[in-house]
Amino acid sequence: MATPTTHKILLDESEMPTRWYNIIPDLPAPPPPPLHPGTLQPVGPEDLAPLFPMDLIEQEVTTERYVDIPEEVQDVYRLWRPSPLFRAHALEKALGTPARIYYKYEGVSPAGSHKPNTAVPQAYYNAKAGVRKLTTETGAGQWGTALAFACAQFGLECEVWQVGASYDQKPYRRIMIETFGGTVHRSPSELTAAGRAIRADRPDHPGSLGIAISEAVEVAAQHDDIRYALGSVLNHVLLHQTVIGEEALLQLAKVGEQADVIVGCTGGGSNFGGLVFPFLREKLAGKMSPEIRAVEPASCPSLTKGTYAYDFGDTAGMTPLMKMHTLGHDFVPDPIHAGGLRYHGMSPLLSHVYELGLMTATAIPQTECFTAAVQFARTEGIVPAPEPTHALAACIREALACKESGEEKVILTALCGHGHLDLAAYDAFLSGRMVDEDADDARFADALSRLPQVPAGA
Amino acid sequence: MATPTTHKILLDESEMPTRWYNIIPDLPAPPPPPLHPGTLQPVGPEDLAPLFPMDLIEQEVTTERYVDIPEEVQDVYRLWRPSPLFRAHALEKALGTPARIYYKYEGVSPAGSHKPNTAVPQAYYNAKAGVRKLTTETGAGQWGTALAFACAQFGLECEVWQVGASYDQKPYRRIMIETFGGTVHRSPSELTAAGRAIRADRPDHPGSLGIAISEAVEVAAQHDDIRYALGSVLNHVLLHQTVIGEEALLQLAKVGEQADVIVGCTGGGSNFGGLVFPFLREKLAGKMSPEIRAVEPASCPSLTKGTYAYDFGDTAGMTPLMKMHTLGHDFVPDPIHAGGLRYHGMSPLLSHVYELGLMTATAIPQTECFTAAVQFARTEGIVPAPEPTHALAACIREALACKESGEEKVILTALCGHGHLDLAAYDAFLSGRMVDEDADDARFADALSRLPQVPAGA
Repeated sequence: MATPTTHKILLDESEMPTRWYNIIPDLPAPPPPPLHPGTLQPVGPEDLAPLFPMDLIEQEVTTERYVDIPEEVQDVYRLWRPSPLFRAHALEKALGTPARIYYKYEGVSPAGSHKPNTAVPQAYYNAKAGVRKLTTETGAGQWGTALAFACAQFGLECEVWQVGASYDQKPYRRIMIETFGGTVHRSPSELTAAGRAIRADRPDHPGSLGIAISEAVEVAAQHDDIRYALGSVLNHVLLHQTVIGEEALLQLAKVGEQADVIVGCTGGGSNFGGLVFPFLREKLAGKMSPEIRAVEPASCPSLTKGTYAYDFGDTAGMTPLMKMHTLGHDFVPDPIHAGGLRYHGMSPLLSHVYELGLMTATAIPQTECFTAAVQFARTEGIVPAPEPTHALAACIREALACKESGEEKVILTALCGHGHLDLAAYDAFLSGRMVDEDADDARFADALSRLPQVPAGA
Repeated sequence: MATPTTHKILLDESEMPTRWYNIIPDLPAPPPPPLHPGTLQPVGPEDLAPLFPMDLIEQEVTTERYVDIPEEVQDVYRLWRPSPLFRAHALEKALGTPARIYYKYEGVSPAGSHKPNTAVPQAYYNAKAGVRKLTTETGAGQWGTALAFACAQFGLECEVWQVGASYDQKPYRRIMIETFGGTVHRSPSELTAAGRAIRADRPDHPGSLGIAISEAVEVAAQHDDIRYALGSVLNHVLLHQTVIGEEALLQLAKVGEQADVIVGCTGGGSNFGGLVFPFLREKLAGKMSPEIRAVEPASCPSLTKGTYAYDFGDTAGMTPLMKMHTLGHDFVPDPIHAGGLRYHGMSPLLSHVYELGLMTATAIPQTECFTAAVQFARTEGIVPAPEPTHALAACIREALACKESGEEKVILTALCGHGHLDLAAYDAFLSGRMVDEDADDARFADALSRLPQVPAGA
C-alpha cells in the first residue's frame, strides 16, 4: 500500500494540440459520399449551406490531414483541456490484474462530457459567419448543455428542442442548459410545423430524437441568421474530437507506455473516433499496433448486428443518405439508461473504418456495465456516465483475461463523462430494478426491412 | 481575443503537500479549550474516545506546527489532488476589471467538494484503529458522500443518517452515497432511541441536522467497533483541509503572484480555514499581507451577527461546550439553498482567529450570490455549488471595486464544489422564484437568549 503511485498524467496547456487530425487521407480507401435522397447524387456544399456555415462544410469534406484549431477555440478549450489521463491503480488492485489500465477523462469539461470539444468550434465558426442563433435537439441533454455553454462563449443564442419524455423526467439537464443561457423547448412543440402536426394528433406526445431534429432543422432552414448544430455522426464532429486521442498519445508517451488495447463506447461514434483516430494514424504508419475495439449496448448494436448500407440519419427521413452501419432509421431500441448510445446508425466515417477491418466491435448488456461502473466508482472515485460504463465493462473483461493469462497488457479507454446527472440509473441498478435490455435478434430484422432502396453504384 | 492565456495552474503529484499545517502554535494566543458541559472543565482525550480514534483526538489538540500526511492517505489524495488553481480570465473580461481573479477548485474530488480532504484521513485513522464502521449525519449529502467514498477506500462500512426533508426531496445525493457503498437512513429513524422518541410524536418528522447527529452519535457510542465522523468545525478537520491553502500558495508562486485579498465562504469553517491558514502563516511571519475575508449567508451570519461565547455544537446540547461565534445552538436559519452554510456556529479555531483580528467577515444574501454564480458559469464554464456562490459574489464585488479604483489587485477564492446536484436552486433563481432570505436583526436575538451559562474564567 505504501508505494507512491502516480494517478494522473497531466499536460500543460502549452502541450494542448493546435491541430485537429483528419483520418480520411490516411485510409486505404475514401469513405462513400453522402447522397441526396431525391437525386441519389453525392450532396454538395450548397445542399448543406442552409444548415451549416461554410467553414464546417469544408471541414466535413476536407482531404487535408490536419486542420488548424483557431486561437479563439484553443482559448476556450484551455478552460478544461488538456484533460487528464488517469492510471487506474486502485481498480487494477481491486481486480488483481497485471494489466495496466489508463482512462482519458472528459468529465472535467463544462458540460461534463466530451461534447464541448465540438460544440465550441461549431459555435465559433457560426459566430464568425455572422449567425445569430444555433438550434439543436437533445435527448437526455448532454449535447444541449455543451452547445449552450459554447454559445455563451461566443455571444450566440442557443435554442434546444429536448425530447419530451426527458424534459418531463430529467429536469436537471434542462436547468443546466438554462444556466448556461440556452432556451429549452419540450419537443414536440407548438413552435414548428413538424411539432404542431404531431401535437394535433397527440398533445402529450413524449417525443423522440427524430422529432426534435425535425423541429430544430425546420427553424434553422427558415431563417438566414439561424443555423443548426449536430453533436455526433458527421465527419467534422469526429475531426474536432481528435484532441482526445492526440492528448492521450502524448500522455502515454510521457510515461513510456504504448496501448495494446483501446476500448471505447460508441453511440454516434464521436467520442470513440476522437480517441482512436490518432492512434490509428500511428498504427497505419506502422509505429504501434493497438487492437481497437468499439463497445455498444446490446440493445442498439449497429456495428455488431446492423447492416452496412445507405440510410437516413434521422427517423423521419429528412437528411441526406449516409452509408453506415444501421439498424434502420425507424428502429426503436429498447429503453436503456445510456441514452447517448441509443442511435440507430453509426458515424459513416467510423463505419467505413470498421468495414476496412481496422477495428473490432462488441456489445455488452447494461447490468454488466453498471456492475463495472460501481466497482470503478468505489475504487477510482468517479461515478461514470451510463455511456462509458460500456467501455469500463469491456476494460474489466480484458483486465480479467490478463489475470488469467498473466499478460501485462496496457489498456486505454475513454471515460467520456461523469454520471452526476444520471444517478437515477444507479438507483435502479443498486435497488435491483435494472434488467438487461431486450437484445433478441428478432428485434433487429423489422426496421432493416425498411431501409431506403439505393442502387449499387449510385 | 487572440492572446494566448493560461487558465489552469497545475501541480504535479510530486508537488502535493506531505504535511498538514496546524496554525495554533503560530497564533499570538491559544484558542480557549472545549468544556465538559457537566463539569465545565476542559474536556480530555478520554471524553472523546468513545467517538473518535486516538490519532484524531491527538490531532485535535496537537501544538505541533505540522502533522505528516500518511502515505496511504496521500495515495488516495492523488486520485484528484493537487487540485487545479484557475485564473478567471473569462470572468475578468466580462467584468472589465483590472483585478486578477484566481480560484482554487475542489469540485474535482470524488464527492465534488473539499470534504474528502478530511473524510479520507478520518477513514484511514479509524481503519488503522480497528474500527469496523463509521456513522455520520448529512444534510444535503455532501459530507455523507465524501465519507462513503473514503470508507470504500479503506474497507470500512459507512452508515449515514440523512435529514428527512433532504432524503425525501433530493434523492441524488443519497444515490451517490449508496453508489460509493454507504448505507443511508432517513432521519429520524427507528434505529435509535433518539429517532424513535421523535417518531413516536410525529412519524413523518422532516428531521434536522441536530437530530441526525444525535442518531449517528448514539450508535457510535454504543458499539466498541463503531466510531463517529464529523465533516467540519473541529480542529482536526480544519487541519486536514490545509492541503488546499498549501497548494494554492505554491500555485500562485509558480505564476509570480501574491494574493491581495482572499475570500471564501464559511459554514462550519473547514473550507475557509483550509484555504487561508497557510496564507495566514505567511502573513504572521511578515512574508505577505493579504486581506482575509469570510463570506457568510445573510440568513446565518454567525461571525457578523453572532456572539462569541461557549455554546453547544449540536441542537440538542449533547456535545462539549465550544467557545465560538454562535447564533445560539437552537437557532433555525431561514431556509436557503446553501445547505452547507446553515450552521448556527463557527469553527472555534476560526472564531478565535476572527477575535484576534486576523480576518474580516461579511454577509451576502442569496440572490446576489446566484447572480454571480450564473455569470461565473457562462464565462468560466463551471456551475458552482450554492455555498461558494457566496465567495464568488464577494469576489465580483471586489473586482468591480477595482474597476472603479483602477487597482490591479490579486483576488484569490476557493470554489469549494460544483453544483451538479444542486440545480434545483438554479431553477428557482432563473425562474424568478428565489427570494432573499429573512435576515432581520430581530431573528438573531431569540436563540441567543438561550446560550448556556458559563462563568467567566471557567
